[in-house]
Amino acid sequence: MRMYDIIHKKRNNEELTDEEINFMINNYVSGEIPDYQMSAMLMAIYFNGMNDREISTMTNAMAKSGDMVDLSSIEGIKVDKHSTGGVGDKTTLIIAPIVAYYGVKVAKMSGRGLGHTGGTVDKMEAIPGLKTNFTQEEFFNIVNKTGISVIGQSGNLAPADKKLYALRDVTATVESIPLIAASIMSKKLAAGSDCILLDVKTGSGAFMKTLDDSISLAEKMVAIGENCGRKTVALITDMDIPLGNNIGNALEIKEVVDTLKGKGPKDLTEICIKLAGNMLYLANKGTLEQCENMAKEAIQNGYALEKLIEMVEAQGGDIDYIKDTNKFEPAKYSCEIISDNEGFINSMDTEGLGIASTMLGAGRETKEDDIDYAAGIILNKKVGDEIKKGDILCTLYTNDKDKFENAKNKVKESIYIDAKTPEKTPLIFARVEKNSIDKF
Amino acid sequence: MRMYDIIHKKRNNEELTDEEINFMINNYVSGEIPDYQMSAMLMAIYFNGMNDREISTMTNAMAKSGDMVDLSSIEGIKVDKHSTGGVGDKTTLIIAPIVAYYGVKVAKMSGRGLGHTGGTVDKMEAIPGLKTNFTQEEFFNIVNKTGISVIGQSGNLAPADKKLYALRDVTATVESIPLIAASIMSKKLAAGSDCILLDVKTGSGAFMKTLDDSISLAEKMVAIGENCGRKTVALITDMDIPLGNNIGNALEIKEVVDTLKGKGPKDLTEICIKLAGNMLYLANKGTLEQCENMAKEAIQNGYALEKLIEMVEAQGGDIDYIKDTNKFEPAKYSCEIISDNEGFINSMDTEGLGIASTMLGAGRETKEDDIDYAAGIILNKKVGDEIKKGDILCTLYTNDKDKFENAKNKVKESIYIDAKTPEKTPLIFARVEKNSIDKF
Repeated sequence: MRMYDIIHKKRNNEELTDEEINFMINNYVSGEIPDYQMSAMLMAIYFNGMNDREISTMTNAMAKSGDMVDLSSIEGIKVDKHSTGGVGDKTTLIIAPIVAYYGVKVAKMSGRGLGHTGGTVDKMEAIPGLKTNFTQEEFFNIVNKTGISVIGQSGNLAPADKKLYALRDVTATVESIPLIAASIMSKKLAAGSDCILLDVKTGSGAFMKTLDDSISLAEKMVAIGENCGRKTVALITDMDIPLGNNIGNALEIKEVVDTLKGKGPKDLTEICIKLAGNMLYLANKGTLEQCENMAKEAIQNGYALEKLIEMVEAQGGDIDYIKDTNKFEPAKYSCEIISDNEGFINSMDTEGLGIASTMLGAGRETKEDDIDYAAGIILNKKVGDEIKKGDILCTLYTNDKDKFENAKNKVKESIYIDAKTPEKTPLIFARVEKNSIDKF
Repeated sequence: MRMYDIIHKKRNNEELTDEEINFMINNYVSGEIPDYQMSAMLMAIYFNGMNDREISTMTNAMAKSGDMVDLSSIEGIKVDKHSTGGVGDKTTLIIAPIVAYYGVKVAKMSGRGLGHTGGTVDKMEAIPGLKTNFTQEEFFNIVNKTGISVIGQSGNLAPADKKLYALRDVTATVESIPLIAASIMSKKLAAGSDCILLDVKTGSGAFMKTLDDSISLAEKMVAIGENCGRKTVALITDMDIPLGNNIGNALEIKEVVDTLKGKGPKDLTEICIKLAGNMLYLANKGTLEQCENMAKEAIQNGYALEKLIEMVEAQGGDIDYIKDTNKFEPAKYSCEIISDNEGFINSMDTEGLGIASTMLGAGRETKEDDIDYAAGIILNKKVGDEIKKGDILCTLYTNDKDKFENAKNKVKESIYIDAKTPEKTPLIFARVEKNSIDKF
């Protein structure tokens, strides 16, 4: 078998066999297939695509290129959740306790934030004492005991994806739906859960700019998951509306707790109920409607908050900060952004807000940067709100006041005010399951 | 300027600027752009093509990546001729003397044969004493004195093409019309002639399998030539009929002399008159019809043969061999291929015949191989001829009789006999000039 012939076939839009795909991934990872052949292949895939069987085989080979986490020592159904990148997205810390209350296990390894998106692990580390590095055994014990654990990613998950992604990044082959799907799903397959819920962001700042593209990506990922024996559902959600009002680590933990107390922002609460409902549905806890009602109940009765406290305790965190979020040390400096326009907030550049939050110290610009856990942004107004001149649009927080200047400009650029009230869009645009697509 | 952005533009089917194309070629040759980016680019070009301006700029940059031969010290109009590969193609040695008789200069650097195609330089070296390695000054002097010189390729012509070709060869990006056109024309531009005649082979064994593809390739090459200030014409000729009856070095020299004496095979004579006519036309010697008549005349009056003798003498060859080709030492062994079928010769696999000739010793399988100048094949029957059982189809010659076995099998596989007489096709299918395409 020769890589040349495999490139030639894909270039001519012929279907690749499983043997050819496995040969290609295995020999690329081992270094026997050079980058210059793989980049030609990636460009051919960009143009000719890959069918569901091809991309499932490729994803599986990518997953198997490194460690395959074995979660079999955790009892019950393990459900994973993945978001294709969101700013102020603290949903994992809300929905994991909800589903854990119903016996669904969430054993999640999460990446750290870099650039404009904050990682869940970083948010958790805002809680004093909380650890996110555990041995595999400790990790499994926490999940078995509390139903949830979220730890930092360790081990060698899907090295084929790392190598392929680095190559795609320099050869203009990132924006290919099958390749994006394979990249995300290879890590999910390797992470070992039985079921996968995908939150696919759509909108101006997202990978997928249009709803049609987002649905295509969701369909590919669902097909890969199902072909590889994982029950998979994808929700297409709005990238252009930040979830909740708070961006920044401690600020987001506060909002998580508020939401689990039933006092969270309406949009964040609503989307968390949908996400948690779908996770319960994946774990066969009932119809989708029943599962969403169960999610609401777990918030109302306070049991989900108890689950969060259990997890924080199990990971060594000081639970007093959860019981009373006023204990979080506030940032030394704050600064209000005042509107000099009037009208309605038409949209927000969530990526811009994420970058501004990083500028304030809430995120890392390089891997080595320290995080200012108190830094971030509280949105006083949201998309659709009427704005008068002099209104406070949002408030910026930081422990280093030199950081305001750049962040202020970035925030101002990221909020679009228009004379007309914007069209109301749903929080969830579509839901994709095996053999069914629902648009809302 | 970043290669990433240039790949991204081509991938999105946007037009590249001259600056971007020059940046890409110059930095690829210097090693600053890695192979893995260039191969992704080549695949994007495979899919999205390049317009005439883009490919002309690219070809010019490739030509300028190495030595640009300066033929200005040769008086008169210099015309080059290129064939996209043919078996038994000895036309250069017939047409160059014809046009030289009319004052058109042919200063040709020719490659050596490898695999199934014999190089013109190898054929010439069958003439005892004849040299093909000269300094540039000697080369120019011979052309100024006799009007023609054909020498082996030296110097560093279009290194960008060598590097790109090697990459295309392993990334399944050879079969792209703009890239093939750029590869051929970059070397022609570097070789320095004022006008270029292209002989584009079409048919089963050729790069371009269909007439439409061959015309597209011809159009691209003509556009490049004209955009780069070289008057260019392309003829599309039949790859599936070997030209003349003889394949092999000394055997082809004999046929060259026969043709220049007016006693050559009809097909070879006809195509040489067309090719030479077009070269004279390129050099502004008259209308195409007038130029073809001039070509005929130079054969009839014997002046073209005299020109060949002048060139052989100037390059140190023994002219007695040209005056009497019976002086060429015949091969020690010969072997006839007898038909065990009846019908008509429907077609010949010229590539197969070329390989058989190489097997007999007439060509090199590796660069280091020695050539048996007497070895080769004489076709006793040609396409369209009626065949009876027991007829001699062709005769094989070699000085090493162990070589017959494989060559015989290869020859038999390469001649297709059918019950029906084949459709008669023209020797030249089409002619492409700036702004005009004629099909015959």
